[in-house]
Amino acid sequence: MKHVETLRWVGGADGYLELIDQTLLPLEFVEIQCRDVETVWEAVKMLRIRGAPAIGITAAYGVCIGLQTAAGKDQTALYQRLDEVVDYLASSRPTAVNLFWALGRMKDTAAELRGSPTAEISDALLAEARTIHEEDRRTCRAIGRHGAELLSDGQGVLTHCNAGGLATADYGTALAVFFAAAESGKRLHVYVDETRPLLQGARLTAWELQQREIDTTLICDSAAAVVMKEGRVQAVVTGADRIAANGDVANKIGTYGVASLAAAHQIPFYVAAPASTFDLSISHGDEIPIEQRDPREITHGFGRQTAPEGIDVYNPAFDVTPAELIRALICEHGLIQPVTRQRIAEVVGGGR
Amino acid sequence: MKHVETLRWVGGADGYLELIDQTLLPLEFVEIQCRDVETVWEAVKMLRIRGAPAIGITAAYGVCIGLQTAAGKDQTALYQRLDEVVDYLASSRPTAVNLFWALGRMKDTAAELRGSPTAEISDALLAEARTIHEEDRRTCRAIGRHGAELLSDGQGVLTHCNAGGLATADYGTALAVFFAAAESGKRLHVYVDETRPLLQGARLTAWELQQREIDTTLICDSAAAVVMKEGRVQAVVTGADRIAANGDVANKIGTYGVASLAAAHQIPFYVAAPASTFDLSISHGDEIPIEQRDPREITHGFGRQTAPEGIDVYNPAFDVTPAELIRALICEHGLIQPVTRQRIAEVVGGGR
Repeated sequence: MKHVETLRWVGGADGYLELIDQTLLPLEFVEIQCRDVETVWEAVKMLRIRGAPAIGITAAYGVCIGLQTAAGKDQTALYQRLDEVVDYLASSRPTAVNLFWALGRMKDTAAELRGSPTAEISDALLAEARTIHEEDRRTCRAIGRHGAELLSDGQGVLTHCNAGGLATADYGTALAVFFAAAESGKRLHVYVDETRPLLQGARLTAWELQQREIDTTLICDSAAAVVMKEGRVQAVVTGADRIAANGDVANKIGTYGVASLAAAHQIPFYVAAPASTFDLSISHGDEIPIEQRDPREITHGFGRQTAPEGIDVYNPAFDVTPAELIRALICEHGLIQPVTRQRIAEVVGGGR
Repeated sequence: MKHVETLRWVGGADGYLELIDQTLLPLEFVEIQCRDVETVWEAVKMLRIRGAPAIGITAAYGVCIGLQTAAGKDQTALYQRLDEVVDYLASSRPTAVNLFWALGRMKDTAAELRGSPTAEISDALLAEARTIHEEDRRTCRAIGRHGAELLSDGQGVLTHCNAGGLATADYGTALAVFFAAAESGKRLHVYVDETRPLLQGARLTAWELQQREIDTTLICDSAAAVVMKEGRVQAVVTGADRIAANGDVANKIGTYGVASLAAAHQIPFYVAAPASTFDLSISHGDEIPIEQRDPREITHGFGRQTAPEGIDVYNPAFDVTPAELIRALICEHGLIQPVTRQRIAEVVGGGR
């Protein structure tokens, strides 16, 4: 298996961020060097890097890159630039809370060092970004370990979009559950929704599972229902972009449909996500802002126009799955089951 | 509105079939001339012409084209060729029962004329194909009229795949319901599933609705669930490729998921299809043969590879929606509601 490093920091405080351009996978493996904050912003916006945890890590390093232009300047200039960079990066994608969480950690780190030499502040910010990055690695392993308990040898499972190594530092969230189960000797057969419009399932998840030699079958999103009806899957696991205090989950468009179909077929539906994906400031899922994306993702999806000129399109990037459809939330601290406001507060409330 | 003629016979007994190559829509409007039965077979197989009623009409004309090579030969040669042509056309697509129904009518017509001059038999077969074609026009209008009763002014409705004029002689089945409602002054807003893998919703349904100036919004298949949750649609109408005696419906992959989601959201789910789509020889939906199609429809959608090399794919062309999820069946003889074996036998049993 080829080791895939979703993103990495190269060099010291004057270094840069290198990341895989995921829009080109699985046909081309190209790494981009982000040496200015605009390149970071564009990579997040255009989904070259995607997945809530990976977006958080990228944003943290993005702050370091953005501050490089303030190197050697005075404190006022540095903090002014920090605010600018944080606001700018926050404008890249509205739904994934990990973005705001990571930017918040970077701001807090800088705030604590007010009065220190600017070089020291820059070093501390890079150290904080590296910590966020390293924590995510450990978090993914823990999620995998906890989630694997829920699966049995010989089961079929289904996932939607990509919540794999490519969506995190490495190893993933939903896919971490499959990886950890496989590593402990459980044989799984994974059904992967291709995940229109941007095909993260077909392009990224199928590729990651293939790399790890896990039995995988790719399906159209609309075939998930019949795959369930035919008894091919015994569990569904997805990732999350933001989880409200009551357990409602915003995730890739189509997740709500899969959860609803799983309920209709008495198949447990699980969501795997780090504690940083929980937004306890949001009471219910309907308060989560949902990003609307370019209609051309649907009308020109494969480089070719596939819909009539001028047709109206509804292209929300995410939907919200209500807590009652989720059998358990899987985070690095363990399982949250049943999914209630109280259990969530107990398990992740202290971690924020 | 441009009048669209899905297919037409040009000339007399030595004429040919002209049909729109639907794989090129909506970007290119190209008509193919079928002057031999191999071209007819290929057009059906490759979905240049598709939709259960249109496949039936095409097959009927296909028989006439196939028999042209037996013109001037003796009776034995003609009937031998007839059997050959019928078996060959029957092998094009296994699920749509209208194909077998139309081929059966052609065989019956020829059988009744055994002993007549061969030119007379050929003429009678062309007349029968024209009758099937003309009957379908009237059938679609009747379906539209009956189905429109189910919809109210101002409603949102959703459809999957294309059961429009392009799937029939003209006017359609599911879309006939919308067209008839619109003609009677009801304003509808139609949500169209793009319908992976071949995007008949995006390419054909969106185009037909646009031609008729009906408010239309295109969505990814996986967005149907959230569109329902948001209260945007009050009814779902699809077509059918084969309906079993108990009311189970085989239709484009994804239909079962849409029906299941409609049930979860208390939205009525209707199926519009001519009596020729009912196969009373089949007791339950699980006896309907389901066509498996080329994995490349999913891995190489629209010319570009979008999945890793060598990935396993499950690509059934159809799924089966159980009768209990269907509020009513709409055929040319009226509504079948509730959907029971007995009501089906009463309404379409006499028509076979």
